[in-house]
Amino acid sequence: MNRKPYTIALIQTGCRESAEENLAAHLDLAERAASLGADVICLQELFLGPYFCQQEDARLFDLAEPVPGPTTAAFAKLAKKTGTAIVVSVFEKRALGLYHNTAAVLGREGEVLGIYRKMHIPDDPAFYEKFYFTPGDLGFLAVDTHVGRIGVCVCWDQWYPEAARLTAMKGAEVIFYPTAIGWHPAEKDIYGDEQRNAWTTVQRGHAVANGVYIAAANRIGFERPLADGNNAQGAGIEFWGSSFVAGPAGEIDALASADEETILLAQVDPERIEFVRRGWPFLRDRRIDAYGALTKRFDD
Amino acid sequence: MNRKPYTIALIQTGCRESAEENLAAHLDLAERAASLGADVICLQELFLGPYFCQQEDARLFDLAEPVPGPTTAAFAKLAKKTGTAIVVSVFEKRALGLYHNTAAVLGREGEVLGIYRKMHIPDDPAFYEKFYFTPGDLGFLAVDTHVGRIGVCVCWDQWYPEAARLTAMKGAEVIFYPTAIGWHPAEKDIYGDEQRNAWTTVQRGHAVANGVYIAAANRIGFERPLADGNNAQGAGIEFWGSSFVAGPAGEIDALASADEETILLAQVDPERIEFVRRGWPFLRDRRIDAYGALTKRFDD
Repeated sequence: MNRKPYTIALIQTGCRESAEENLAAHLDLAERAASLGADVICLQELFLGPYFCQQEDARLFDLAEPVPGPTTAAFAKLAKKTGTAIVVSVFEKRALGLYHNTAAVLGREGEVLGIYRKMHIPDDPAFYEKFYFTPGDLGFLAVDTHVGRIGVCVCWDQWYPEAARLTAMKGAEVIFYPTAIGWHPAEKDIYGDEQRNAWTTVQRGHAVANGVYIAAANRIGFERPLADGNNAQGAGIEFWGSSFVAGPAGEIDALASADEETILLAQVDPERIEFVRRGWPFLRDRRIDAYGALTKRFDD
Repeated sequence: MNRKPYTIALIQTGCRESAEENLAAHLDLAERAASLGADVICLQELFLGPYFCQQEDARLFDLAEPVPGPTTAAFAKLAKKTGTAIVVSVFEKRALGLYHNTAAVLGREGEVLGIYRKMHIPDDPAFYEKFYFTPGDLGFLAVDTHVGRIGVCVCWDQWYPEAARLTAMKGAEVIFYPTAIGWHPAEKDIYGDEQRNAWTTVQRGHAVANGVYIAAANRIGFERPLADGNNAQGAGIEFWGSSFVAGPAGEIDALASADEETILLAQVDPERIEFVRRGWPFLRDRRIDAYGALTKRFDD
């Protein structure tokens, strides 16, 4: 029996003044996405506040909350109200002094279908995530929603073919990536296009290699580090938006601009995945007998 | 001490009437590439004849030869004469009734630096390679040439992030892909652009994910199956050329047309690899503790 396409939505927006305003704005945007026909909605990374990893500041662990917790509860209510599944990014407080960058997948009854803890943690100037986030210990995730089986990774995972492959191997039809990526102002003119192209290209490559849909929800807007933090002189980050959905042949199905609030809608068609994978049966020919060294750091 | 850029060349051309003519033509093109400054030259896949895998015909095993053998000997002589390293694709007869799709890397003294046997073997209409080629048993390859460390994969390997990753993990600065890929005439109008874009994109993705150069040498021209073979009514293949070199941020450094004989030159700059990898230190953050399932067929 053929399966029907379903509609996904990515929320792209900028940061408001307070957590309360961000929560309200994202609840509103998600509800509007549902009213536009979305079956599965993905929020951007750590949408409850500014991208706080621009400095290393132990005070900021106060921003974390349990999962499930208040933020997932608010979206669980909306999921139930709208009959949608929602991917919710949360700064998770797991235990005293133990934190993760987490995404919860909520089902249309408001239940938690699965939890993903960001596996690959970056540490670059103004992206000091290794200070805040313990690397995930739950492995990769795909869960069944009411419309289809979805996977979730987070931001830096986007650069890792292993993450996309392992998520696809769990049966994901679409891999969502809540994201917060942008330009250093001093680099934008010279490297900006190349950086964003690389980001899009590597993910489109995951779509091709795995015959899956890829859906990346990124934030927009310019954000400065805390004025009283240890990177107060930092130049800030211009988040590049450009949220997109790529189809299983790597084609761009939907693309947002770099700087506009957007509810980005696209279709995920399981029959198209089947069609593309019949044409390019890459999963058939993997040399699993020869991949053992992938668990090495380097093969020297 | 900083290392200097070196020049690579990809040979893109169509098939001649006979093996002798093809050998002469590729020797000539390679010599011209050397005269243009190439340090490392990569020939396209199975250039000695037409793409014979359009039919399954046991007579065609007669086309195979040992490695080293006559074809590598001819190019070894040229390598020594020109002081270049050359990647030579050969239909290898390894033993009685045992055949591989092989690429030999010849050093500038004419010596064999390494042998790669195609690991991922396709089997699609008009690409009946599983009939001819035993899957490679040597794993992935990177070898030191006089200018830099290079890797070699072949054609269908292009679609596998695992192949590129494992080759990069062996220290390859550039991964060469001798290739024979094209359009089924009936599909070209509808799917042609999407197919070629997917092929380019997934490989540019390998460049990004690994911070390496990618260099794919594809053939051009239209070839029919044998008139007296078991696919005599086959529509043939239009090889799409479009050989390219991508840099370590996925940028296109050089690109050939779909249908013109081309000696495609590009620079490989180890310092650029270092620069790009410092900016995007993906190799640092791989979760090798969580990649074990990559050796499974599917994770269900």
